[in-house]
Amino acid sequence: MAAAVAALVIGLPVQADDIRATGDLGLVVERETGSLLVVDQSDRAAIGRIEGLGDLSHASLVYSPDERFAYVFGRDGGLTKVDLVTQTIAGRVMQAGNSIGGAISDDGRLVAVSNYEPGGVRVFDADTLEMVADIPTGSKTVGLVDAPGRRFVFSLWDAGETWIADLSGATMEIVKIEGVGTNPYDALITGDGRTYIAGLFGEDGLTALDLWDGAPSPRHVLPGYGKGEENLPVYKMPHLEGWAQAGNEFVLPAVGHHEVLWIDARDFHETGRTQTHGQPVFAMARPDGRQVWVNFAHPLNDTIQIIDTLTKQVVHQLTPGPAVLHMEFTPRGNEVWVSVRDAGKIIVYDTRSFAKLAEIAAVSPSGIFFTARAHRTGL
Amino acid sequence: MAAAVAALVIGLPVQADDIRATGDLGLVVERETGSLLVVDQSDRAAIGRIEGLGDLSHASLVYSPDERFAYVFGRDGGLTKVDLVTQTIAGRVMQAGNSIGGAISDDGRLVAVSNYEPGGVRVFDADTLEMVADIPTGSKTVGLVDAPGRRFVFSLWDAGETWIADLSGATMEIVKIEGVGTNPYDALITGDGRTYIAGLFGEDGLTALDLWDGAPSPRHVLPGYGKGEENLPVYKMPHLEGWAQAGNEFVLPAVGHHEVLWIDARDFHETGRTQTHGQPVFAMARPDGRQVWVNFAHPLNDTIQIIDTLTKQVVHQLTPGPAVLHMEFTPRGNEVWVSVRDAGKIIVYDTRSFAKLAEIAAVSPSGIFFTARAHRTGL
Repeated sequence: MAAAVAALVIGLPVQADDIRATGDLGLVVERETGSLLVVDQSDRAAIGRIEGLGDLSHASLVYSPDERFAYVFGRDGGLTKVDLVTQTIAGRVMQAGNSIGGAISDDGRLVAVSNYEPGGVRVFDADTLEMVADIPTGSKTVGLVDAPGRRFVFSLWDAGETWIADLSGATMEIVKIEGVGTNPYDALITGDGRTYIAGLFGEDGLTALDLWDGAPSPRHVLPGYGKGEENLPVYKMPHLEGWAQAGNEFVLPAVGHHEVLWIDARDFHETGRTQTHGQPVFAMARPDGRQVWVNFAHPLNDTIQIIDTLTKQVVHQLTPGPAVLHMEFTPRGNEVWVSVRDAGKIIVYDTRSFAKLAEIAAVSPSGIFFTARAHRTGL
Repeated sequence: MAAAVAALVIGLPVQADDIRATGDLGLVVERETGSLLVVDQSDRAAIGRIEGLGDLSHASLVYSPDERFAYVFGRDGGLTKVDLVTQTIAGRVMQAGNSIGGAISDDGRLVAVSNYEPGGVRVFDADTLEMVADIPTGSKTVGLVDAPGRRFVFSLWDAGETWIADLSGATMEIVKIEGVGTNPYDALITGDGRTYIAGLFGEDGLTALDLWDGAPSPRHVLPGYGKGEENLPVYKMPHLEGWAQAGNEFVLPAVGHHEVLWIDARDFHETGRTQTHGQPVFAMARPDGRQVWVNFAHPLNDTIQIIDTLTKQVVHQLTPGPAVLHMEFTPRGNEVWVSVRDAGKIIVYDTRSFAKLAEIAAVSPSGIFFTARAHRTGL
């Protein structure tokens, strides 16, 4: 699109070949340089770079429903709106001092950010980035996700509560759920938007909420899952977005052990364990659920293992290179893109033959985000 | 985009406001006029019309991975490639005399069409529309779907077989499964691409194949489901794309009765029935699985009923108007678009308040297809 846009700006004729639709594009976070690499899945290539994003440590992003704009959540409190078509920054606000992720409402009209300092959630108009709601919580606020019905769900580290903010009506309504547990540090929502699961730093186990219930009550699940007696620091606790749903089961990284756990998606009972190469960071299910790809914590983070869902056995192992930080499947699962930070590249693999299809240069790449996320809940 | 494209062609500068991304677009089949209405979900509006598609009776379409192109399968054997950006026909071939649907491979490179006459499947290069494979079957060929791994699956009406064509390697491989049942007339594949289910015209029940099995064997399921003793004509048999998966269950139209059936998605045993206003045609699950929207056969086809998944009770009823033919949810389920053929319009509803949000004029609209289908298996 870069060629097309340049021509548009100076008024030259543009060939049809210069038009590039956005359904197969993506963004790769380049943390050290505060930039985003724009990539094209079909061409297996980088097609541009957007700079000036600020501090992109642990940055994440969401997409607008038309797959044209991304909203990038920086650790420094910056909320940046990026235009994939023109490959420019369309808007940027410093909305807090220290933030920890965001979400977009199911209708694509509202973008929410959760903040440590000042603690709470702020909601912005997706078009203008004007603030439309401020929800102070008096606590570090974590685990923010979107839920169906123009709702956002998030948890309070200090208070051990989960709040549901409903912005579907003329006035915002907030449901506060107490007794979620000691120091929730992260959360996920299932792909159907029904179940919210919070990880706990201050005790073992996790807390599940059924959002289909008008008044959800906390349910303690996986009582053996957590920091246990090892007293791990927060940054060693697994990110819950590292959970994957594969068919009828969730696959999740064990805490502090070289294994992944399998649990039944209906009732959360454990159905198996698979020994792995190292301490898993992400266990990502291929979209059809037949395979789970796992990467590992330092110093074993040069490796990926592929587990077959039916047998729960490791069926293949790859060594992409130093510091494999993230993996993103193409929407229908035929390929996977892997960021290898310290090799300065992204590697594209065929998920069936495991053949390497392409390498793409990138500056210290971390998170990879394809635009198909626009159409999913909780991504 | 029309304005932008016109400017491109004659070399005038284009404003950023003229750019329109395709992630929230869709096409509505206008059967009588052989045209497609281009619609924008975010604007809840028609933004153009593409004409010259030929016979669009029972037409369906699939999208390219970049959500720019649609491949339209006409009943007259026409395969037409449509460009959503320029709103023009990008290519068209008459590939057979009488065809019945198509599919696109998971990598987006191949488009397949199933034909009655001559019976078989033909596979085309998605870019050029050149034929790359011809698979004569000696039978009317139905129930064509795409499956992960560059495969197409389809069934033979006359032979009672299902074939799996694998185009992932240098040479095409075909697995033929016999004993599928008498006169398969339609089929579906589950969203994870694992289970292929064929409906049978010549006997009661359906046949399920587990595509994760290297050598799938036919499994007879729902033995009471079918034409029974009523000897219904083929056109009265329910289209299997009218099945919906809602959470842990499938919901499907009963044959010849005013009810929908609920079956367990893991083992296909019946879990319940819901009495309905008429004989159901489509039972469509809202993407979060909490609601199922049902429309009905003539003469009760002015009505829609909404069923709650938890209680299996009808919770709301709407009367959009004469001949409600199809419903399509926005990808995250906040809205649903309904084609009301004999009222010449599409109606957009909020799926929670059931409020009517918009009406859009269309010429005898039938199928509605949003571009988000590009990222899904079997759609």
